[in-house]
Amino acid sequence: MARAIRLHKGDLSEEAAERYGDRIAVDTETLGLNPHRDRLCVVQLSPGDGTADVVQIAKGQKKAPNLARLMRDRKKTKIFHFGRFDIAVLEHAFGVTTQPVFCTKIASKLTRTYTDRHGLKDLTRELLDIDISKQQQSSDWAAETLTDAQLDYAASDVLHLHALMDGLVVRLEREGRTKEAEACFRFLPTRARLDLMGWPETDLFAHS
Amino acid sequence: MARAIRLHKGDLSEEAAERYGDRIAVDTETLGLNPHRDRLCVVQLSPGDGTADVVQIAKGQKKAPNLARLMRDRKKTKIFHFGRFDIAVLEHAFGVTTQPVFCTKIASKLTRTYTDRHGLKDLTRELLDIDISKQQQSSDWAAETLTDAQLDYAASDVLHLHALMDGLVVRLEREGRTKEAEACFRFLPTRARLDLMGWPETDLFAHS
Ligand SMILES: Nc1ncnc2c1ncn2[C@@H]1O[C@H](COP(=O)(O)O)[C@@H](OP(=O)(O)O)[C@H]1O
Ligand SMILES: Nc1ncnc2c1ncn2[C@@H]1O[C@H](COP(=O)(O)O)[C@@H](OP(=O)(O)O)[C@H]1O
Repeated sequence: MARAIRLHKGDLSEEAAERYGDRIAVDTETLGLNPHRDRLCVVQLSPGDGTADVVQIAKGQKKAPNLARLMRDRKKTKIFHFGRFDIAVLEHAFGVTTQPVFCTKIASKLTRTYTDRHGLKDLTRELLDIDISKQQQSSDWAAETLTDAQLDYAASDVLHLHALMDGLVVRLEREGRTKEAEACFRFLPTRARLDLMGWPETDLFAHS
Repeated sequence: MARAIRLHKGDLSEEAAERYGDRIAVDTETLGLNPHRDRLCVVQLSPGDGTADVVQIAKGQKKAPNLARLMRDRKKTKIFHFGRFDIAVLEHAFGVTTQPVFCTKIASKLTRTYTDRHGLKDLTRELLDIDISKQQQSSDWAAETLTDAQLDYAASDVLHLHALMDGLVVRLEREGRTKEAEACFRFLPTRARLDLMGWPETDLFAHS
C-alpha cells in the first residue's frame, strides 16, 4: 500500500483542512507528559480514508489557525484515544478548546469490562485485528526531520480511530451506555483544562 | 431559636413542596455507603430560610412524587455537599435523576486550594464560623422514630448549604473558575449514575 502521509510544517494547509468532514481522528506527540514543561511537537489527523496529515509544530509556535478552526468546529467530532492529554496539550499550545470529542479509551472502559487493558495497541488488536507498533512512542519528536519510522508511527496512531469509534459506538449502544459516554465526552475538555489549571492528579469527584 | 423542622413520612407534603424556590438544599441519610446494599432512610431539604423538611422513607418504598418532582425540576438548583452520593441514592430509590445541582465539596476543592479539608464540618466552620456536630452521623437512620438528636443533626446538614453556596460562588468567580465548576456540576449526575452502574471506584478519565 502506498504511504498516504501528508507532511506539513506549522499548520495544516487550507487544502488539507478542507478534506475534513464531520469526524476527525486526532493525536499529538510531545516531548513528555507534562504539558507545562513538554512542548507540542506533532499533531496527526486523519479524515478516516486511510490517509493522514502530520503537522510539525515549531518551538515557541503560538498559532495554527487551520488546525485550531477544525478543533473548535462544533460540527466536527474529534476522535482521540485518551483525549484528555491531547486536548490539554492543544489548549496549552494554541489556546483552543477542542470540542465535541469522542475518546476511544473512555468508550473502551465503559464497554470492555472484561479487561483492564485499554491501551490503543490492545484495543486495536481486539476490535480490528490489527497490530500497531508502539516502538517509536518514546522518541525525539522535536527533531527537525522526522524519520520514516516516526512518520509511520505518528500516522498509525490516527489511521484506525474512525474504525475503533464505529466499533465502540455499537458496543455502547448494545450495553445501553451511550448517554453516559456522551456526558463523559462533554466533560472531557473541562477535565483537560483542569489538568492545566493545576489539578492533574486529583479526581475532583472523589470524596477525599 | 425555635426548632423549625417539619417531619414527614414517605414524601414531602404538597404544601411543604410549594415552599421551594429556585435553590433547594438537599442531603440524605442511609444505612451505609453502598447504595445497592444500604437503603435510603431520610431525605432532608431546606428552602434556605432557616427551616428544614425531614422526610422519613420506608423500607421498600419506591415512590415519593413530590420529592421527585423537585429533584428533576430544571428550574431548581439542588445544593448538596458531596452530591455524588446523594444523587446516586435518590436515583436508586426513586429512579429520579437530580439536576441541575451545585456541590459545595467540589466548589471547595476548586477554590480552597490551601487545604485538603473539604468535609462539611470544616467548610462550615471556615466560611460561616459555625460549628456543626457530626456526632449522629453514624446512627440508625432506619429507626421508626428518630431521636431529637438525629433530627437536629439531619437538619443541620442542610440548613447552611445556601450560605455555603453563596460564599463559594463568590470565590469561584474571584478565581475565574466558575465555568469549570459548572461543567463539573453538569457531569455530576452522570458520575453518580456510573457509581450505580458499576464504576464506583474508577476514575474514568484516568489513563489507567
Ligand atoms: N499519565 C500517562 N501515562 C501514560 N500515558 C499517557 C499519560 N498521559 C498521556 N499519555 C499518552 O496516552 C496515549 C495513549 O496511551 P495508551 O495507548 O497506553 O492508552 C499515549 O500517547 P501516544 O500513543 O500518542 O504516544 C501516551 O503517551
Ligand atoms: N466514600 C465515602 N467516604 C466518606 N463519606 C462518604 C462517602 N460517600 C459518601 N459519604 C458521605 O459524604 C457526606 C459528606 O462527608 P464530608 O462532610 O466528610 O465531606 C457524609 O454524609 P452525611 O454528612 O450526610 O452523613 C458521608 O456519609
